[in-house]
Amino acid sequence: MTRLQDDLMARARPDIEKIEKELKANLTPYFDLVAQTAGHLMFAGGKRLRPLLIVLSARICGFEDPFVYRFAGIFEYLHTATLLHDDVVDGASIRRGKPVAHSIWGAPTAVLTGDFLLARALSIASETRNPKIISVVAEVTEQMSQGEIYQLMKKGDLFFSENEYFDVIMRKTGVLIQGACRTGAMLAGARRKWEDALAGYGRNMGIVFQIADDILDYTADTEVLGKAVGADLREGKLTLPVIYALKNAGEKDRTEMEGIICRPDFTKIDFIRLIELINKYNGIDYSKKTADAYLKRAQESLSPLPSCPARDLLVIVAEYALKRDK
Amino acid sequence: MTRLQDDLMARARPDIEKIEKELKANLTPYFDLVAQTAGHLMFAGGKRLRPLLIVLSARICGFEDPFVYRFAGIFEYLHTATLLHDDVVDGASIRRGKPVAHSIWGAPTAVLTGDFLLARALSIASETRNPKIISVVAEVTEQMSQGEIYQLMKKGDLFFSENEYFDVIMRKTGVLIQGACRTGAMLAGARRKWEDALAGYGRNMGIVFQIADDILDYTADTEVLGKAVGADLREGKLTLPVIYALKNAGEKDRTEMEGIICRPDFTKIDFIRLIELINKYNGIDYSKKTADAYLKRAQESLSPLPSCPARDLLVIVAEYALKRDK
Repeated sequence: MTRLQDDLMARARPDIEKIEKELKANLTPYFDLVAQTAGHLMFAGGKRLRPLLIVLSARICGFEDPFVYRFAGIFEYLHTATLLHDDVVDGASIRRGKPVAHSIWGAPTAVLTGDFLLARALSIASETRNPKIISVVAEVTEQMSQGEIYQLMKKGDLFFSENEYFDVIMRKTGVLIQGACRTGAMLAGARRKWEDALAGYGRNMGIVFQIADDILDYTADTEVLGKAVGADLREGKLTLPVIYALKNAGEKDRTEMEGIICRPDFTKIDFIRLIELINKYNGIDYSKKTADAYLKRAQESLSPLPSCPARDLLVIVAEYALKRDK
Repeated sequence: MTRLQDDLMARARPDIEKIEKELKANLTPYFDLVAQTAGHLMFAGGKRLRPLLIVLSARICGFEDPFVYRFAGIFEYLHTATLLHDDVVDGASIRRGKPVAHSIWGAPTAVLTGDFLLARALSIASETRNPKIISVVAEVTEQMSQGEIYQLMKKGDLFFSENEYFDVIMRKTGVLIQGACRTGAMLAGARRKWEDALAGYGRNMGIVFQIADDILDYTADTEVLGKAVGADLREGKLTLPVIYALKNAGEKDRTEMEGIICRPDFTKIDFIRLIELINKYNGIDYSKKTADAYLKRAQESLSPLPSCPARDLLVIVAEYALKRDK
């Protein structure tokens, strides 16, 4: 794992440094409070995978203009806006190893800073003067908010199904990463076939990324993860490992699992027992296999594209999305 | 006053009915929860001045395509998004005579519905395929969120100055209404001189509208207003009447006013005393005169435009913005 991450970082570093620079530059002219609140989360070791995917997608299609780094920030702003609002919505307490923004500056500032970032993202998108690109960004934002609302509606629903889960993660993550890769291609004025290939990669890679995130919530070390393990469940969010286990459990085990899930103040012992039951019904294993199938699809989507270092890096990024430990 | 309102309603009704229809049509395909949460506030007797201004601006410049009604909804969505988030931010309890959305569906749903409306507004803007129009809408959104953040930063600041107040209301309201009128002209492909005339009208009219709102918070009847009188002050928002009075009060009166302002749980008797002191130093009167000066500027801005019923209606709308009782 570490070797994969090291390899990825070594190849991606020059781009990520430029992305970091632009992310900062595009925030500093505004009120200190915004820069602080957004920066607290945004500069707390985010992986920058979303902007990196745009830069790589554009490069595969032959676009090397430095504007790509500014543009790439859009998807990090959108993502950060969602995280800020989500943390308020979910009543989360830590994120990326730090107290959440709203616990420091209050929910009002966190909400408004999120709004600002959404607006900033769309302003930068409109700098392209390309209505199709702007349309994709607006559509991504709309889908994301709908995914979040749908998730909220389904909170604590013990009959939340695998299909519904996929509907949520497609809107929340799939569409965002699909949009990132697609707009990268669009910036380059790529032919439709290439654009669709990159969009397909992004969509599948987004699913991989989200399932991996959801698995980590059951398997990771809190310190490595940078947020509380079991947080999803405490917030009433059922994800693939538990959905699959619940569906396949015998009546007695299902009842026991439901008992734990319905107590948001479950103890560490409860949680360990829950993981035992999830594993008894292969919940983690099934989730990994599912993610792996999407990983293959993501990588296969790239086949119409010319072979080049940027394409190779997309292959590595997708693998990393699944195999990372945080 | 009632005659002015009746006159306005009689002239504007056909447009407002079409606006209402579109506002509903563009929300219904979405999750029930979104439609309910957004609809609760959006269909609680909003005045629809913002969309009306777009329709009229476009018409003055010769644009009568029915798309204008769909487009006009953008500014009502943006406005509603801001209200939803504001009410969460401010901890408000009633709005338009009804309990605020977050007290019924919870802050998370209110926040996410606001996000959805922001995104929806930008999606509809992108349907124009006109990058300049989209850019104006994105810029409006960005300015609005910054105005809100600035206001939040200055909450409870007894030295909040008249200049700072104007900075906030320009971003919060001026820029929104300016954008509404400007994009109306842009939809029509109007010549720059007309576009600027309408933008100037909108900017000044927005200021009139906001000052009038801020005066109403001190002078209106709670039942007529549909929200709690004195709400701004309870939320720590200093507005023009009190800013002016504080600046001009003698030391003893200033100290007394500050005492009331700093107690968010001030009694009705305290509030009546505060209004007495505001009036002693002409706070309301000065605010009315200031708004009146902007009203004149708004109406004068229209002079480059051809005389027509839509232009006449803009004159009436501006007057109504100042003289309304809610």
